[in-house]
Amino acid sequence: MKACVIAVGSEMLTPFRVDTNSLIVTERLNTIGFDVRLKVVVGDEVDELTRVLESALAWADAIVVIGGLGPTDDDITREAIARVLQVPLEVHEHVLDRIRERFARRGMTMPEINRRQAMAPRGATLLENPAGTAPGLWIERGSTSIVLLPGPARELTPMIETVVRDRLAPLGRGAGLFRRVIKITGRTESDVDTSAQPIYGRWTSAAVPISTTILAAQGQIELHLTARADNRAASEAALDAAVAELRSALGPSVYSVDGRPLEAIVGDLLRERHLTLAVAESCTGGLLASRLTDIPGSSDYVERGVMCYSNRAKTELVGVPEALIAEHGAVSEQVARAMAEGVRARAATGAGIGITGIAGPGGGTPQKPVGTIAVAVALGQDVQARTFQFIGGREMVKFQATQAAMNMLRLMLIEPR
Amino acid sequence: MKACVIAVGSEMLTPFRVDTNSLIVTERLNTIGFDVRLKVVVGDEVDELTRVLESALAWADAIVVIGGLGPTDDDITREAIARVLQVPLEVHEHVLDRIRERFARRGMTMPEINRRQAMAPRGATLLENPAGTAPGLWIERGSTSIVLLPGPARELTPMIETVVRDRLAPLGRGAGLFRRVIKITGRTESDVDTSAQPIYGRWTSAAVPISTTILAAQGQIELHLTARADNRAASEAALDAAVAELRSALGPSVYSVDGRPLEAIVGDLLRERHLTLAVAESCTGGLLASRLTDIPGSSDYVERGVMCYSNRAKTELVGVPEALIAEHGAVSEQVARAMAEGVRARAATGAGIGITGIAGPGGGTPQKPVGTIAVAVALGQDVQARTFQFIGGREMVKFQATQAAMNMLRLMLIEPR
Repeated sequence: MKACVIAVGSEMLTPFRVDTNSLIVTERLNTIGFDVRLKVVVGDEVDELTRVLESALAWADAIVVIGGLGPTDDDITREAIARVLQVPLEVHEHVLDRIRERFARRGMTMPEINRRQAMAPRGATLLENPAGTAPGLWIERGSTSIVLLPGPARELTPMIETVVRDRLAPLGRGAGLFRRVIKITGRTESDVDTSAQPIYGRWTSAAVPISTTILAAQGQIELHLTARADNRAASEAALDAAVAELRSALGPSVYSVDGRPLEAIVGDLLRERHLTLAVAESCTGGLLASRLTDIPGSSDYVERGVMCYSNRAKTELVGVPEALIAEHGAVSEQVARAMAEGVRARAATGAGIGITGIAGPGGGTPQKPVGTIAVAVALGQDVQARTFQFIGGREMVKFQATQAAMNMLRLMLIEPR
Repeated sequence: MKACVIAVGSEMLTPFRVDTNSLIVTERLNTIGFDVRLKVVVGDEVDELTRVLESALAWADAIVVIGGLGPTDDDITREAIARVLQVPLEVHEHVLDRIRERFARRGMTMPEINRRQAMAPRGATLLENPAGTAPGLWIERGSTSIVLLPGPARELTPMIETVVRDRLAPLGRGAGLFRRVIKITGRTESDVDTSAQPIYGRWTSAAVPISTTILAAQGQIELHLTARADNRAASEAALDAAVAELRSALGPSVYSVDGRPLEAIVGDLLRERHLTLAVAESCTGGLLASRLTDIPGSSDYVERGVMCYSNRAKTELVGVPEALIAEHGAVSEQVARAMAEGVRARAATGAGIGITGIAGPGGGTPQKPVGTIAVAVALGQDVQARTFQFIGGREMVKFQATQAAMNMLRLMLIEPR
């Protein structure tokens, strides 16, 4: 089954806004076997939307139009649909009453302009919008189902869920698409692919075929597995086996198979082991502490962080000896080690991390170019230090450094020496 | 002049990836008066791309196709263009030589598959790609110019710059679009619009018409001003006057008119005044320090940060008296004040910031619900504290809290008591 997703709104044709609603819709459509073959962003122009709709009607089994259902002149989705289908727009009195009530509940009178939101092309079925004034619309034309949904994600998300379950799923004669994401860190894309390709290459012709895409993001590689099967149970079983096979081939560089980010994985490992953590950061400037504490409940294991940018702060806050900095330089495994052990001792935590490096763009030298990062992790009797050489701009170097530090701690937690 | 931007790649039809390349292209096209009327994402399917191209040829003055120029089977852009134009694909020997050389320089033999990248539809002009193997292509058909560019942003960005300057700009008979962004914090969207609308409402009918869009992002409001004029000088003059008028109406809540983010504005103010800064964070978990140090050269003024999540860390790291926490609670203006003054005293800096609050989702009480944040700033003799009530999820609350803290410091720096 082929789907077309159309996002309506001139702001998404500027250099400032992307359409992200279509991701929500695509995810839902995929689960019932609808492939999104085309995505379109069109402005608030009734002629343009009409042309796009006409073209999609020629091939799509489902057309999902998002946005342009508001009360103002530039909300043109209803008009475009009526024009394409050559039917008039009609006012639905019970919808009008409901919109009036919504305003009355807030002590306001409905502006006359909102009357538009109670209009629908003749023959359309209204879809309830629990979170807003504009109802959605469902229209069938030949073998194509057309769904009109409001643009705010808060309104769109519950409505697409309902439409997919109650209206589109019964039409989905094809098999559904089910996905898994395997997250890997500490290896390059080509290295991962060399290990993984011989495995996933076989799956495309399996009983439940699985296609695999490799995506390299900053500081991590993702393998996206997509199974096509008639039912959820068959695809979940095939995906479970596939994930297990890749996991065994890729070893401990796989850190997540259930969507959790690295900061949550590390946090859960610390919590399970009743350990607390303190971090001392120089070049990452607090990003490691911030990522760790993005996880709700992280106060259970994050005791403190210190961001010691200056050498004086390194000495005062975590007790790095001035002589050590003078001898090895602030960016060195020796200083990273002293930071990890120092912050752990002062915080009296079970684990400590120290990061020092050159995030750039300035500060590099031939011996220690921009992107040189020393990371140390102290856990029990074990203190490990490593030097990394990252590429990219300042924010990318910072991110990769925090990723590397969390991964070192993760590996020490799961494979203690 | 009307433009259509087509992004080619099946990964952008999954729930995981959005097309962001089109933003880069749109920005460049706008400066020479090309309006992007339609954006399309199409998969690696030659039939689908062919259909989209045929439809765009009917109305667009310029069609920019991004991606699908790689060496593999699923890179189908060349084939689709050749099919639409009904011309054969031809090998360009000098391009083939250049690709072979690129491989040779890395000690590798060119795989036979890369031969595809030296092919072009008959009549196409090759566009040099300084950063990769696949050249771009320029084709004219009737009144439409077709541009094919590679997908990696590193290759795309310099190439669109050159194409726009050398090839599309001379065609742009219309006026160019020029933009400014005014960034505002500490006010709501409707409050900003109430002050700004009577001003920008007049501009649409001015000699150089300026249209204005208001965008609310987390922790800030942006006003996007777009002028349409025959030349850069006229539009820049009109935009300068417009920005000055809005700035005077909106007062010091405007923090940036040149694209700089708040962390850079605050940093520049500190540097100009030869002041250094230390921050003590609880609920923001290091995000404030991380944002401040995202700015290159921030080591000039950021001395240190401490992330004191636990009460013990608040006492040990910045000397907040235990009795003060017991009396007022950890989330209180009194504790925020003690954190700001404590971290400043220990770091011997000119300015200090303290943030304590409840980022959620847990930890709220009826008196202090999730989103309650106390911020204090110490600068010279002046110590100011405020309590905010933010809405949104954990990360959004953290971000807004750092935004509010930087804005308090900014206002104290520009308007000392």
